[in-house]
Parts: sequence; C-alpha cells; structure tokens
Amino acid sequence: MYKFADRFNGVTGSAIRQIFSLLSDPEMISFAGGNPSPETFEGEALSKIAAELLCEQGKTILQYGDTAGTKPLISTVQKLMHEEGLEVAENEIIILTGSSQGIDMMTKTFCNIGDVVLVESPTFLGAIQTFRLYQAMPVGVETDEYGIDLVDLENKIKLYSPKFLYVIPTFQNPSGRTLSSERRKAIVELCTKYGVMILEDDPYASLRYCGEPQKAMKCFDTENMVVKLVSFSKTISPGLRVGAAVAHKDIIAKFNMCKQGQDVNSPQLNQMLVREYIERGLMKARIRKNIEMYKEQMNAMLEAISREFPQDVKTVKPEGGMFIWVELPDKIDALELFEAAVKRKVAFVPGTHFYAEGGHKNTLRLNFTMVSVDKIQKGIKILGELIKERL
Amino acid sequence: MYKFADRFNGVTGSAIRQIFSLLSDPEMISFAGGNPSPETFEGEALSKIAAELLCEQGKTILQYGDTAGTKPLISTVQKLMHEEGLEVAENEIIILTGSSQGIDMMTKTFCNIGDVVLVESPTFLGAIQTFRLYQAMPVGVETDEYGIDLVDLENKIKLYSPKFLYVIPTFQNPSGRTLSSERRKAIVELCTKYGVMILEDDPYASLRYCGEPQKAMKCFDTENMVVKLVSFSKTISPGLRVGAAVAHKDIIAKFNMCKQGQDVNSPQLNQMLVREYIERGLMKARIRKNIEMYKEQMNAMLEAISREFPQDVKTVKPEGGMFIWVELPDKIDALELFEAAVKRKVAFVPGTHFYAEGGHKNTLRLNFTMVSVDKIQKGIKILGELIKERL
Repeated sequence: MYKFADRFNGVTGSAIRQIFSLLSDPEMISFAGGNPSPETFEGEALSKIAAELLCEQGKTILQYGDTAGTKPLISTVQKLMHEEGLEVAENEIIILTGSSQGIDMMTKTFCNIGDVVLVESPTFLGAIQTFRLYQAMPVGVETDEYGIDLVDLENKIKLYSPKFLYVIPTFQNPSGRTLSSERRKAIVELCTKYGVMILEDDPYASLRYCGEPQKAMKCFDTENMVVKLVSFSKTISPGLRVGAAVAHKDIIAKFNMCKQGQDVNSPQLNQMLVREYIERGLMKARIRKNIEMYKEQMNAMLEAISREFPQDVKTVKPEGGMFIWVELPDKIDALELFEAAVKRKVAFVPGTHFYAEGGHKNTLRLNFTMVSVDKIQKGIKILGELIKERL
Repeated sequence: MYKFADRFNGVTGSAIRQIFSLLSDPEMISFAGGNPSPETFEGEALSKIAAELLCEQGKTILQYGDTAGTKPLISTVQKLMHEEGLEVAENEIIILTGSSQGIDMMTKTFCNIGDVVLVESPTFLGAIQTFRLYQAMPVGVETDEYGIDLVDLENKIKLYSPKFLYVIPTFQNPSGRTLSSERRKAIVELCTKYGVMILEDDPYASLRYCGEPQKAMKCFDTENMVVKLVSFSKTISPGLRVGAAVAHKDIIAKFNMCKQGQDVNSPQLNQMLVREYIERGLMKARIRKNIEMYKEQMNAMLEAISREFPQDVKTVKPEGGMFIWVELPDKIDALELFEAAVKRKVAFVPGTHFYAEGGHKNTLRLNFTMVSVDKIQKGIKILGELIKERL
C-alpha cells in the first residue's frame, strides 16, 4: 500500500526478535537471549541516586541538554579511558543512547549507498541490519580460533575498498572468541595502511572470568583510525540506554550532527545515573559480583556440554562474556534442531543468522547469563539428546 | 583528513546551535531559545515516581525493552489519542526517544536520495537538517497569515512529487501560526488525492492561551496518510526524551525496524516516568499552570512590541505556543540586527535560518518562555531602539 524507501528492499527484520516472540512460554529454557541477568540490576541503589538527582538538579536534568552529552559523564568516560591507557579529550567523546547508536552513527557518517563494511564472520546480527538499512553492504571476513584471519582481511580490503571494519574484539558476539593483543595490533596496522576505519565494539570486555585482559584496539591506534564504543549495558543496565563513542574530534563532530537530527541528546537523567553509579564505586563492585555469578553459569554450561554433547560437536570455550558458540557436525541443520528443541522447551539462536552471507547451518549460539545452573544442566542434556538423535 | 559520506555535502550544522554558543553570558536577555521554562519541571514529583519505579520494577525497567515501547505507556498514549477523538490500536503506536526521532524515522522510512519533502515556509530548522542528512530535499510551501497556501501546495505537489509534507499545525515553530480546522481538512484531502504522506508534528498544541482548540490533522485522515507525532517535551520535560508516533501499522512496523538499528528501545525508566506522571493527573495540572505562566509572558511581549516597535514592523499574534514571529521592513537585515543586539545583550534567531531556501532576511523569531516579564520589557525596548535606528 505504501511506497517505502529502497533501503528496506531485502531487509526482513531481526530473525532473533522473531525467535524471542516464541519464548514467552515461562517453561522454556532459553539459551537464545543476549541480555544480562536481571539479578545484576541494582534498582534500589539507582532509585536512591535518581531521587537525589531529580530533587537537586531537576531544573537542569529535565531540560534539553548538549548533543555531545553532559560534561560530568564525559569526564567520567575520560577517566575510564585513562584506566585503559587512553588519553582522550572532551571533544573526542560523544554520549550515546546506548552504544549501539554508535553503529548507526558510524554507518551514517562514513557510508554511501553500496559501500562495503567488513564484519567478522560470524558477527552481531543487529549490526548487519543497521548497515543494510543504510544500503551499505556487510561482507564477512574469515575467522579462525583466534578471531579475524589477517590474510582474508587484506584480500577483502583489496577487493572491496571497505569504509570500515566492524569488530567485537573481546568475548565476541556470537562466537565468544577474543582477539589477542598481537592480532589487535596487526589488524589496526593493516587497516591503517589501507585507510580503512575500524569500529571497535567492546561491550563484554569487563566480564572476564579467566585469562589475561587484552588492550583495547584503540590503544594501538596511532593514526586515529579507530572509533571505540563504550557500553554500560552489560555492567550497569541496558534499559538506561547510555553508551559513548570515542574517536578523533572530526568524527565526533559528524556524530554530533547525526545525533542532533535523531534524538537531539541522550536523556540527562540516565547519563547522570550512570555517572553517579560509576563515581560512587558501584559499577566496579557490581562487575566483581557479575563475574562471580556468570563464571559459575559459564562453567556449568561448559561442563554440561562436555558431558552431554557428542565428541564431534566443537565448542568455543570463552574466557568471559555471555555466549558459547557451537559447531555441530555438518549434517545437522541447527534451524531444524531449533524447531525440535523448542518442542522440548529449549531454545537457542541458530548460527546462520550471524553470518552476513548466511550459510553455516550447523552452528548455534548459547547464552548462559539468563539461565540458572539447574536449568543449564537440564537444557543442555535435552540438546545433547536431540543432537545424538541426528547423528 | 577523513572521507565522510556524501550526506554531509552542504550541511553545515545548526545555525541555531552556533547562536546558542554565544549565549553563555548570564547578562544576555535571550529570546533565541526554544526551550520550556525550567520552572515548569517538577523535579520533586518525578523524583518520587522514579524512586518508586526503580525500587518496585527495577528488574524489568533496567532490562532491554520492546522496540515499540512499554505497554503501559502505549496504553496511556491510546487514552490521550482517544481524548483527541482518535481511536488507535496498540500496533499503530511506537514510543520514541523524543518526538524529533519521528522526523528521522519518517525520512528514513519514505525517502530515497533526492526525494522532495515539502515544508512550511518558514519551518522548524532541525527538521530541515534531518531531511538533508538523508539527502532528501526540503522545499518550502508558501504560507499566508492562516498557514499553508493551498494553491502553492498543489503546485509544488505536481512539480516535485514529494514523499511527504512536514507540517506543524498549531502555534507553529517559528511563525506561531495555527492552521484552522478547515484548512487542516483541505490539506489532508489534497495530499491524499495525490498520494502524498503528511508528518504532523504538534508539540505545542496543548499550550493554548486563547482562541478555540483545533482538531488534529490526523482526525481528518480517512486514508491513513497522516503520521502524527506526540511530544511530552513542552508539557513534562524535554530532558526525559520521550515521545511517540501514531500511524498505520505498516508504517509503525518500518519505524520499529529503523529504531531497532538505532537505539534498540527508548529507556524504559523514562517511558514509565512519563506514563506515571500522566496517569497521576500531574501533566494536566502542570499544563494549566504552564498556560497561566506563558500567557503572561506572551502578553507582556506583545504589549512591549506594540509599545516599542515602529508601526511598520509586522508581528504574528499567536494564540499559544512559545514564539512570536516578526517581519521587519525589507531594508532591515535581521542578521546584522542580531550582531548589534548581541552587543547590547539581547539575542533572537534571525528568520532566514527557518527557510529551506534561505532569504527572508527581514524576519526574526522571538521566544518568550525562557525570559521573565521584566527582561521581556527591557529586551524588547532595546530591540525597538535598534530597529528604529535602522529605518
């Protein structure tokens, strides 16, 4: 009936969202989500802070604010970046309505119709959709067990002259893999050599349950080619919708123009809630508790998998984050397995949705942060049975 | 240094924002703003509600939410629409991060590069910038003292085959003019006849200080051609960034896809704050107080103008809203007047910025909601002197 813009051609809405609509059944054991556990949300602490902020600063907090963000939160982000070894000026930061707004801003700022964006293969589904809605073309770069394959990266750069590489370096969604410092450095050098920007999306990095922390890719960025996103969704709350981007001031100026035409500014109450939660030391304490809780869930899932899944199922053992990636024997179709699993009240996300080019039908993603240890054991046992039936 | 997307060609950032950067001087009497008075923000009432919401519903409010918005606020918007004579289904509403996000969504949903959007001449500057960032082309439609000129509208529709008409029907920004019910109906019929959508942006409508309320354009929309934006920025708080769009479900579905790739969902705390503020009867009480306060400011400004400005200056006397529009004699350049006024610590926005095609250098916009009656009298007196010097 309506004549919509060409950008919707071939864009079908998030497959994951469609999966979620199946999951309202309270008896479903869902490994499909990607949300933090609601047990990590400190409603009472935030309630106290919100009450103070609105009483004491209501006249300014309830007014329009600067598109770039409130100065106090910008200064907090500067401190957090300093802790990561990054010295960032005020005009190199913009506060966003959730860090995923940065994926939109990056695409809007750099891409014309038909421009290529390189992505890890597999990658975050939401990003693929964002690129497509700007009529940019996501192209997958091969990955091995350590992440992005440098040879394929260089080939794809030469072949496509991409505008930027989108990368989730730590506990990647969906694969759970982490790029080593050496590979981060090599990727930044390679992209810089060819003039390809990098969008570093790193929302899971602070959820490390074992192994050594890796430096942000931005730390290797001598030529201002990296735009780094900062998220508080996995450490404070996704519902508050507060994130940030850190980049050269000329890029931040363009993000500002884009954001002004979209939501004018991110809500100041939310910005100040995040700022106060961090400055009062609550975020760091919270992260320690999250790590303890999620580590137990991850280990329970890994143990259950090694007990219940047949030997020729490969899993990526992550050092943190929220996901375990599974490669089934080629003959098993995870889409068909999904249908069967849902009938037995277990859900996950078939891996094909995370590939820009589709395929890889034998893969799937399991989330462990939203499910209790009992249910993890029960659900993985059922999945193991279903997989064995299909061998 | 960077190769940015073509969308920025010729887009220079908001002239108004540049004017605002001159206004940090606390002695400046600024008629340049477009903000509600901070006196209208009820920080204490909202503080109490926020504390309750976070304590009692923190586990859900702090989680990711539906892209379309929280059900309770959607149901409140349904009630508000019902009061305006509009029966709207749940899937015909999307909650936005401020209603201006709806201008972005509308453009993204309907416009390809080069498509024309018709706008009132003059119109809201932010909308012009949003259209340009999608490489759509805003084209002004002539207006008379009652708003959009129907003959010119039909001519421009035939000439440009525009995707939609952007219109602020009540107490328009910047002109203060209100379209009569008859003209609203005629515009909807004309656009419907030619298959041109309408974006109805009506944030000021409840701030009526005299005259008769007019029906929303959406009330005359028999063929689902009108997308209506709902704002709480002028009645509760712009800083909370909560608005909504009401349209046919197929359009709302496209807005959902766009929003999912931008900010995923509007913050639920803010949605529920707005919902509770409305449901507890606080918004209606607040609007009554705002009307009383703003009416006094508007009348003070109109009186000062008739006392201080020379006879051949034309002003539009609005029946509500936040702005008074001024047409100086042709020989006076409001850009030059602005420079001189700022030196005498008075500011306004030169009208040329509000025209898609520029020109109209003899016009200017005065805001009265952010300035006390004393300062209104003082500032208008100074402007009057400066205008007389230029005759």
